[in-house]
Amino acid sequence: MAMFVDARTRALQAASTDAVLPSSSDPVADLAAERRRAGFDVAELMRFLHGGQERIDRKARLAEMLQKTDWGNKSRRYFMTTEEQYVAGLQVAFGIRELVKEHGLSEADRRLLALMVALPGGLDVHDLMFVPCFIDHGTEEQQEKWVERARNCEVIGAYAQTELGHGTFVRGLETTATYDPERAEFILHSPTLTSTKWWPGGLGKTASHCILTARLFVKGVDRGPHVFVVQLRSMEDHKPLPGIMLGDIGPKFAYRGVDNGFLRFDHVRVPRDAMLMRFAKVTPGGEYVPPTADNAKSTYATMMYVRCGLAGDSARHLAMAVTIAVRYCAVRRQTAPSPGLKETQVLDYQSVSGTLLPLIATSFALHFSGKAAMASYHDFERRRDTGDFDGLAELHALSAGLKALCTWVTADGIEACRRSCGGHGYSRLSGLPDLYGFYVKNVTLEGENKVLCLQVGRHLIKALLAAQSGRPLRGAAAYLSDGFFEMSQLCAVDQRARWLDHGVQAEAFRRAAVQAVASAADLLREEGGGEVAFEGAVWNACNEAVIK
Amino acid sequence: MAMFVDARTRALQAASTDAVLPSSSDPVADLAAERRRAGFDVAELMRFLHGGQERIDRKARLAEMLQKTDWGNKSRRYFMTTEEQYVAGLQVAFGIRELVKEHGLSEADRRLLALMVALPGGLDVHDLMFVPCFIDHGTEEQQEKWVERARNCEVIGAYAQTELGHGTFVRGLETTATYDPERAEFILHSPTLTSTKWWPGGLGKTASHCILTARLFVKGVDRGPHVFVVQLRSMEDHKPLPGIMLGDIGPKFAYRGVDNGFLRFDHVRVPRDAMLMRFAKVTPGGEYVPPTADNAKSTYATMMYVRCGLAGDSARHLAMAVTIAVRYCAVRRQTAPSPGLKETQVLDYQSVSGTLLPLIATSFALHFSGKAAMASYHDFERRRDTGDFDGLAELHALSAGLKALCTWVTADGIEACRRSCGGHGYSRLSGLPDLYGFYVKNVTLEGENKVLCLQVGRHLIKALLAAQSGRPLRGAAAYLSDGFFEMSQLCAVDQRARWLDHGVQAEAFRRAAVQAVASAADLLREEGGGEVAFEGAVWNACNEAVIK
Repeated sequence: MAMFVDARTRALQAASTDAVLPSSSDPVADLAAERRRAGFDVAELMRFLHGGQERIDRKARLAEMLQKTDWGNKSRRYFMTTEEQYVAGLQVAFGIRELVKEHGLSEADRRLLALMVALPGGLDVHDLMFVPCFIDHGTEEQQEKWVERARNCEVIGAYAQTELGHGTFVRGLETTATYDPERAEFILHSPTLTSTKWWPGGLGKTASHCILTARLFVKGVDRGPHVFVVQLRSMEDHKPLPGIMLGDIGPKFAYRGVDNGFLRFDHVRVPRDAMLMRFAKVTPGGEYVPPTADNAKSTYATMMYVRCGLAGDSARHLAMAVTIAVRYCAVRRQTAPSPGLKETQVLDYQSVSGTLLPLIATSFALHFSGKAAMASYHDFERRRDTGDFDGLAELHALSAGLKALCTWVTADGIEACRRSCGGHGYSRLSGLPDLYGFYVKNVTLEGENKVLCLQVGRHLIKALLAAQSGRPLRGAAAYLSDGFFEMSQLCAVDQRARWLDHGVQAEAFRRAAVQAVASAADLLREEGGGEVAFEGAVWNACNEAVIK
Repeated sequence: MAMFVDARTRALQAASTDAVLPSSSDPVADLAAERRRAGFDVAELMRFLHGGQERIDRKARLAEMLQKTDWGNKSRRYFMTTEEQYVAGLQVAFGIRELVKEHGLSEADRRLLALMVALPGGLDVHDLMFVPCFIDHGTEEQQEKWVERARNCEVIGAYAQTELGHGTFVRGLETTATYDPERAEFILHSPTLTSTKWWPGGLGKTASHCILTARLFVKGVDRGPHVFVVQLRSMEDHKPLPGIMLGDIGPKFAYRGVDNGFLRFDHVRVPRDAMLMRFAKVTPGGEYVPPTADNAKSTYATMMYVRCGLAGDSARHLAMAVTIAVRYCAVRRQTAPSPGLKETQVLDYQSVSGTLLPLIATSFALHFSGKAAMASYHDFERRRDTGDFDGLAELHALSAGLKALCTWVTADGIEACRRSCGGHGYSRLSGLPDLYGFYVKNVTLEGENKVLCLQVGRHLIKALLAAQSGRPLRGAAAYLSDGFFEMSQLCAVDQRARWLDHGVQAEAFRRAAVQAVASAADLLREEGGGEVAFEGAVWNACNEAVIK
């Protein structure tokens, strides 16, 4: 990359009477030069990624609106205390509501504004989980009773599922809801320390109500986790109601402004209609009516939707990180190739470009993978609505696998970007420490990644066993059939250049995948004395092989 | 692992009238059971690691002293604001000084106390860099003038070397010190934005003085970076002196309580004896007297000492992280193998033990590598004092390589431990987010790791080229000669079990190392048209091969 005249440095040198030293860098000139070297039409790429000029213009208009507000100002972001950040989160949430009302903005605009402000907290859980939960799980009456009040913020809700002792294993939740037919009430109780609800956002300080996942007991029978709506705090003074103990769980890696909370019940009575009864029901007399099989399956849909969303969302985060890092490394110069020469742009060191350029490519790959995942989800939804649940197992595996892969690649990629910025990447002002701390929670939430990989492994091994026994495979795992066949053939590549052929590369990936799945299946069979089991000690002992 | 009676849960169940649920865990019983299963003498291992029972007892006595102080109390650690943490850092520093005086403690005790409190900030830089710098670089007069005053905290110092534009490449520093023979003074100046001192700990708020690295100009000749002592703030009101602009650089990934600062000079005059003149000198009349060649070499020693220290220190940090993670995963239970059974200890999942158990082994390997590195350093020091500088290049490569390897392994290991704790690893109360944020700076400071790897690569390639041309290799790189010879022989292993033989494993590592170094050298030769160059474009283009 060329060297540039550094007018500002010359001026500084002229003003200096005691020593003449060239400035080591001219960021503006360096970045302009790099931008001039782009071998493609940047505006066209932007239009393609955003989905047209109209959306780019809309985003610019929204950015203008934000710039006129107090709460959209990010300049103090890294200097706020935890308390200030919590308050700012609420100001943003209500500020966006006002902008939406004032300018008649759409739901898509509202989401885009929230993404642009990028301050977690506020009413995120209320908007994204509490309100939708009534629509997904409430009867029509319950929707009428709650949805409008919630949308108007007359009540503000948290989503209390995870407990101190249980996250991934939802069936292990210990909070109980015992039906008392005499008074037609449920008794909510936290029988153990580990049954304490732990982590729900908005619960620590904000929420007046919550959606509660509790284990339902009717006539002494354990019916497993069900969903309830519960008032937690007084509508007069916001103090916890009798029998309810709750608060903030304290500081986290990042996510400072979010009031993640804890919650315990001591035999708290709520009316029968606290249970959201669109699917499962408890009659006033105490009869339990289970959901239909299809409805039970439908409850997986939200989880898959969230996981597909996390896959798509990963691209945006990695793109932010790699943009910061590439710009910095284009501007940062360090070490002159020989005395007297301008120092080298850090991006020109292979050890830096070899880290960052593949991450640019990765962020594009994640962008399109996320779009494909979401398209698969919507396709499943359309078929589900006609009663066709065939795609469930596959979408479950696809969303689980993509969530794990995309969040791992992104979290590690952000940290690689941060480290590429040397000391300055350690400053929060680079944006990168907060981006990592904020993002990395996705590796463990909504299904811990290694557990999800095991679920994908189970799905693939079952598919391979089916293929081996001659059954045709459909959907995304169908490549295992092809790969299974290919494994009996020699690789046809005879020239070095043919490895660049996309078909050959896809074949190599298929072979590698089949090889990995087959050896995991073999190991399971060997350890299991001829049987392939998908849980228990043998399964645990083969975890590493399955994850690979 | 066996299941245990859970008396507390039974009591809770008995008290509960509405539902009977077993507690999902009994941490106390689980941990006690795991400890009983140790196959070795824990006390003996402790004595071995600490270096005898006496040291363990001493540590216990120091812990007792700490427990009686206010400032040794860690319970509010994660709830403090940045400002509170800064103040706490100073309270700890002065508190430890009082304990040392009161109990007549040794320097080793003082260091151990500081490690146990583990609150970065306070007078760390003053004690570890400012005071030693006078001893290393000052004349006897300068030592007399400064050392006692500094030890008594009459002056408090920072160490201002790194600039906004230069860290790793010290020769690129831009702050100037121009000698004015008429007034026998140096004029300190910051001629460019990038010459701003940036990062020095203790500079933002605490320091009254600093050690300054500035580029020395005498009679118009640039003599490169030299070391000065400079008063920054008034001894009356602690305000910056005229011509000096300084402050705090703002929030970082972690390290909240440390007042990392910035500093600029606008033609600030300091007397001639501000330059520490044990090695290089400027006479009153303005003659520059360079250091002897040996003295110039000696200035590397501090850097190598710090890097060997970082290698040894890594073990302690990884050991803390893996201890937290292993204990948590022994206590955390998730998912029952089949309904009705107690849930599985997370540590029993291979995906978890496969992560954590190798990290325990790694922390031991780091412990002994760090000890060996420090022994090599002390060995070098002994020989240096007899005028023997032969070991310099090798110790330089060894300390650089070990610093990079140990800090990478440790930073990534801490983060792997954190992620193994699932959601609870995201809580600062687990200790792990702060441990990661605190530790990971070591990957980029005191020589960015990839740059250090390139230095090691250069050293090894030079050694291999020497071996190939028949010259005998001495010291740690001598294995390249053996490996070079071995590469011409077939591997002698004929039975699977022989791979477990330590000699065979060492041979395999030698062969792999020679292979890696040789292929990097070949690539350099190929790209360089037959010549092997260690800088410039060809070197940059081969970075990745060299780092591997």
